[in-house]
Amino acid sequence: MYSIRTDLALEAKEIAAQGQETPDIPGLWSEAESKDGITVTRMEIKDNQAAQRIGKMVGHYVTLEVPGMRQGDTELQDKVATSMAKEFEAFLQRIGVTPKHSVLVVGLGNWNVTPDALGPIVVENMMVTRHFFELMPDQVSPGYRAVSAVAPGVLGTTGIESSDIVLGIVEKAKPDLVIAIDALASKSLERVNTTIQIADTGIHPGSGIGNKRKGLTKDILGVPCIGIGVPTVVYASTIVNNTMDMVLEHMKQHTDNTDPMFGIFGKMADNERLQLVREVLHPLGHDLLVTPKEIDKFIEDIANVIASGLNAALHEAVDTDNVAAYTH
Amino acid sequence: MYSIRTDLALEAKEIAAQGQETPDIPGLWSEAESKDGITVTRMEIKDNQAAQRIGKMVGHYVTLEVPGMRQGDTELQDKVATSMAKEFEAFLQRIGVTPKHSVLVVGLGNWNVTPDALGPIVVENMMVTRHFFELMPDQVSPGYRAVSAVAPGVLGTTGIESSDIVLGIVEKAKPDLVIAIDALASKSLERVNTTIQIADTGIHPGSGIGNKRKGLTKDILGVPCIGIGVPTVVYASTIVNNTMDMVLEHMKQHTDNTDPMFGIFGKMADNERLQLVREVLHPLGHDLLVTPKEIDKFIEDIANVIASGLNAALHEAVDTDNVAAYTH
Amino acid sequence: MYSIRTDLALEAKEIAAQGQETPDIPGLWSEAESKDGITVTRMEIKDNQAAQRIGKMVGHYVTLEVPGMRQGDTELQDKVATSMAKEFEAFLQRIGVTPKHSVLVVGLGNWNVTPDALGPIVVENMMVTRHFFELMPDQVSPGYRAVSAVAPGVLGTTGIESSDIVLGIVEKAKPDLVIAIDALASKSLERVNTTIQIADTGIHPGSGIGNKRKGLTKDILGVPCIGIGVPTVVYASTIVNNTMDMVLEHMKQHTDNTDPMFGIFGKMADNERLQLVREVLHPLGHDLLVTPKEIDKFIEDIANVIASGLNAALHEAVDTDNVAAYTH
Amino acid sequence: MYSIRTDLALEAKEIAAQGQETPDIPGLWSEAESKDGITVTRMEIKDNQAAQRIGKMVGHYVTLEVPGMRQGDTELQDKVATSMAKEFEAFLQRIGVTPKHSVLVVGLGNWNVTPDALGPIVVENMMVTRHFFELMPDQVSPGYRAVSAVAPGVLGTTGIESSDIVLGIVEKAKPDLVIAIDALASKSLERVNTTIQIADTGIHPGSGIGNKRKGLTKDILGVPCIGIGVPTVVYASTIVNNTMDMVLEHMKQHTDNTDPMFGIFGKMADNERLQLVREVLHPLGHDLLVTPKEIDKFIEDIANVIASGLNAALHEAVDTDNVAAYTH
Repeated sequence: MYSIRTDLALEAKEIAAQGQETPDIPGLWSEAESKDGITVTRMEIKDNQAAQRIGKMVGHYVTLEVPGMRQGDTELQDKVATSMAKEFEAFLQRIGVTPKHSVLVVGLGNWNVTPDALGPIVVENMMVTRHFFELMPDQVSPGYRAVSAVAPGVLGTTGIESSDIVLGIVEKAKPDLVIAIDALASKSLERVNTTIQIADTGIHPGSGIGNKRKGLTKDILGVPCIGIGVPTVVYASTIVNNTMDMVLEHMKQHTDNTDPMFGIFGKMADNERLQLVREVLHPLGHDLLVTPKEIDKFIEDIANVIASGLNAALHEAVDTDNVAAYTH
Repeated sequence: MYSIRTDLALEAKEIAAQGQETPDIPGLWSEAESKDGITVTRMEIKDNQAAQRIGKMVGHYVTLEVPGMRQGDTELQDKVATSMAKEFEAFLQRIGVTPKHSVLVVGLGNWNVTPDALGPIVVENMMVTRHFFELMPDQVSPGYRAVSAVAPGVLGTTGIESSDIVLGIVEKAKPDLVIAIDALASKSLERVNTTIQIADTGIHPGSGIGNKRKGLTKDILGVPCIGIGVPTVVYASTIVNNTMDMVLEHMKQHTDNTDPMFGIFGKMADNERLQLVREVLHPLGHDLLVTPKEIDKFIEDIANVIASGLNAALHEAVDTDNVAAYTH
Repeated sequence: MYSIRTDLALEAKEIAAQGQETPDIPGLWSEAESKDGITVTRMEIKDNQAAQRIGKMVGHYVTLEVPGMRQGDTELQDKVATSMAKEFEAFLQRIGVTPKHSVLVVGLGNWNVTPDALGPIVVENMMVTRHFFELMPDQVSPGYRAVSAVAPGVLGTTGIESSDIVLGIVEKAKPDLVIAIDALASKSLERVNTTIQIADTGIHPGSGIGNKRKGLTKDILGVPCIGIGVPTVVYASTIVNNTMDMVLEHMKQHTDNTDPMFGIFGKMADNERLQLVREVLHPLGHDLLVTPKEIDKFIEDIANVIASGLNAALHEAVDTDNVAAYTH
Repeated sequence: MYSIRTDLALEAKEIAAQGQETPDIPGLWSEAESKDGITVTRMEIKDNQAAQRIGKMVGHYVTLEVPGMRQGDTELQDKVATSMAKEFEAFLQRIGVTPKHSVLVVGLGNWNVTPDALGPIVVENMMVTRHFFELMPDQVSPGYRAVSAVAPGVLGTTGIESSDIVLGIVEKAKPDLVIAIDALASKSLERVNTTIQIADTGIHPGSGIGNKRKGLTKDILGVPCIGIGVPTVVYASTIVNNTMDMVLEHMKQHTDNTDPMFGIFGKMADNERLQLVREVLHPLGHDLLVTPKEIDKFIEDIANVIASGLNAALHEAVDTDNVAAYTH
């Protein structure tokens, strides 16, 4: 059966809660906070039951939703970077990563496919310092951590699973923590390039745009892995289903009975309707992944925000009040 | 009232013919031919009545539809280039452009917005020769024509209307013909990066991705202008409407009466349904223009096809059997 | 006879003064000022005699020399932008350009040749506003000027002289002032990407990297033209000659008589020695124009400095204390 | 003491033979062959004595010199690719690599520094197939070999030694052979972007543009490593020294005694003169690595030639007569 697949825990929770009387799900804690156009949702999946219900791993998830992100407002971007840095520092503390611990940042995805280039662009903007610690440990200024960064490429262009490449590098560079950045598929167009998810569960097979078959997790890498994801594409079928939801919702506000208007289609469950749409689009090869026209600029902006946030969170000497100045 | 706007004459004709008993429209001639995975449709809008009905100018239109274009098949691409060259030569002959006449190729659009970069990339791959004719006319090999090429940028980055820039250049370079290449919006996702339209009516205000307010036509430029367009983006609302059409069509094949299934929605006219979808999406800022995830590669491929076709059509010394070798 | 050609008035003056007892040249005024690692030299060629002696047009020239420019120091870059803005404002005042006057910025050079891409990159970072003044004059905030910007390409890729393209655009956009940015050839490697020249004499044939045959001057364009140039390449022969100068100079500090060391070669005049070097290199095709290995970064940095400086000088609302924030 | 460092065995041999009566060096075999504008020199350093004398490892070296390479002649480029493929196949046979053996291609260098981007660009144009062998071994067409390809980045941007990254990947992907492509420094400007060296000795510390501190050799990787290098930069001091050689040589053809002309300087040994030049340039920070102005195009062209040659040499199904069609 078709299901509404999403890489975002927040969306997975919304789907799981659909049709319930209360939005609560046992074993799942969450809180949300909105300020300056940024909504931060902190979520914990506490047990396997909740994990199975939602279809996401036990662990912590933070989501930053910034609807204004696509406007190119640099002040807002600085605020998002600062906010992300603060949330990320909480992850480091919870995992027990101290300023002495070294970090490897992994930018998953394909340089040459703009909506999949998020990871490589973040890597390019990281303040990399590990070699100074290796080559002249006495001369490194205080307030910096040993950070390394790689963009391992994708299976289709390297011929090697990204997770194998990362594992090989981890065994040589021996970081205490891996941070993996990846572009995701979203269940709704409005989340594309406006949402950042941080999760201490790493990266899982089947998530992301590329067809990863192995993940990047503590089990596989031997060290903790924090995953950072941004939805950058959406299936055409998802847009259709998502929009029809909105159309139906819109109609319900104007009429008591939408039956004459939409018939059975209007009463279908979300995933049934999606299944119908996919059954029609898929055989024709029309269920493409799409991305907004302005993707080049959007990717550049959000990659800079993430790199700024990470640089501030990883190096004490880098100030969260002015993180953006450290990237270009 | 909302209408289904399209930059393709072929789509405009389909829309105009909807609900008619016969697909014929008085004053409009057309023929189609399919071979090697390429469908060529030649169309002539002969009088103002037909023009008004369809919403396109009186003139000749040729459309190449190549559903396999997005597969990256280089053999197919060579065939499309050859086919395009042949069709384009027919335009040159009809207009009365001889090998002695000089040509200015104009690549409309924005370098930095991948789906809008079609024109500039074509320009980059043109065999430019005009300066040899100006500086050392005696030494130009036979079989070449004086060709110049410019990418004038877009209003948002230059501050000047593209058509003003082009007119200024035309007055100095004095070409006998202008060829303008532009990225278009399509009414259906399957046409994106698979369709090429050639028209002797030039480029009109409101077509293309950017918000052009003046066109590039013989009236404005003083010399004939052939427009070449490729749909590279589509509105989210169009995807929804287009897909719902397909869903309804699909259902009609399985049941006699779709009323219980889709109610009034299923019986709406195409543009009514689109209007409803837009009314919902637009206020939320969700009616984005989207493009396939693989747009970088698609644009590169189709730009190379067009440049190869034009180089072969414009220079007798360049062979239509091997046009692709002249671009990179 | 070979001569030491340079696009910099400062170097031309140095060459003209060689062998003189005093560095003064009649009809030429100059003053220099050093601060914060930036040396600003203001120069005026007052009459034709001085112009002929130096080989540069009558007019004002300002040169900013910043030896530390290649270190990638962002604080220094901000200072250079501020300093450039101040000098540029003096040019505007002297010419009589008020905040009401409109400006067209022209980025000469070739996108695809990194050391020649200075002009196009500056254009990409300009705050372009002319279209707001044209389309909604009532809504433009105070403190902004009507600025447009184009990158006309080079003869080899457009087939049309850049100056013809610019003239065509000037006749349509009707700016009150043209600012033309161009990459230059230098007479010494240490000036490459460390020096900015501003001149109210425009751009002259034979200057710059590309082989321009017509210039951009008030005579040609009908409006004043300020030229901004940065040396980005140097001839191999120039490196050799320049270095041998330094070697000879170095030796003179250690010995009274350099004759045994260098013979006649050591006593040759600068241009004689250059002639000898060129006579050897040229027939072998070895007198290449070269650029530093790190040219990609250097061009990006200096283009941002110039764009920041221009944005601050052209728009009153843009503060010279924080100009860099307006470019990326 | 300063020495004339070069990454090319051919140049090292020339330097070692300077001042000798015969060009022969014991323990070194070489033969040269010229055809179609391509000079192929095959060299073997047979014993440690010869290795020490020349300063290169015991092993086989093939050099392709193509002075016309910088002209952008696509026919010549195809010939070079075919010639390179043939020479490379001889290396594979000598090492005992059969069509069943898998290969990892490593593109050393920095994407963002054009003259150092050779390796990454070659990697981008490789026909990568290893994943097909891993995921669906039964469906791979005959005539293809398992090829993987990675660009590990440079120490300055990853914080990790390239050789550590490559070793980590080799341990996971388990290729039977590593091919490493690197940009080199040359001792003469005319070799820049016109020369390709293939060596079965791998990549050694201190070679290449970046400051590698560990090499890529059979000792380190556990599998054989063939190095492919192209000089893309040259020191300013080397240009000066090299040119003065040519000037002196030129003068000797016109006069019996160059003493009056050049004094002691003219009689200095090559490395003494270089030492003098460096002593002057170095303290001023003027001994830059430089590259030709047209480096963007040169790197693109030679990377395509190498990728074409490798694709043909590695996959039997790819024809050496038409290798260039497989890259873009």
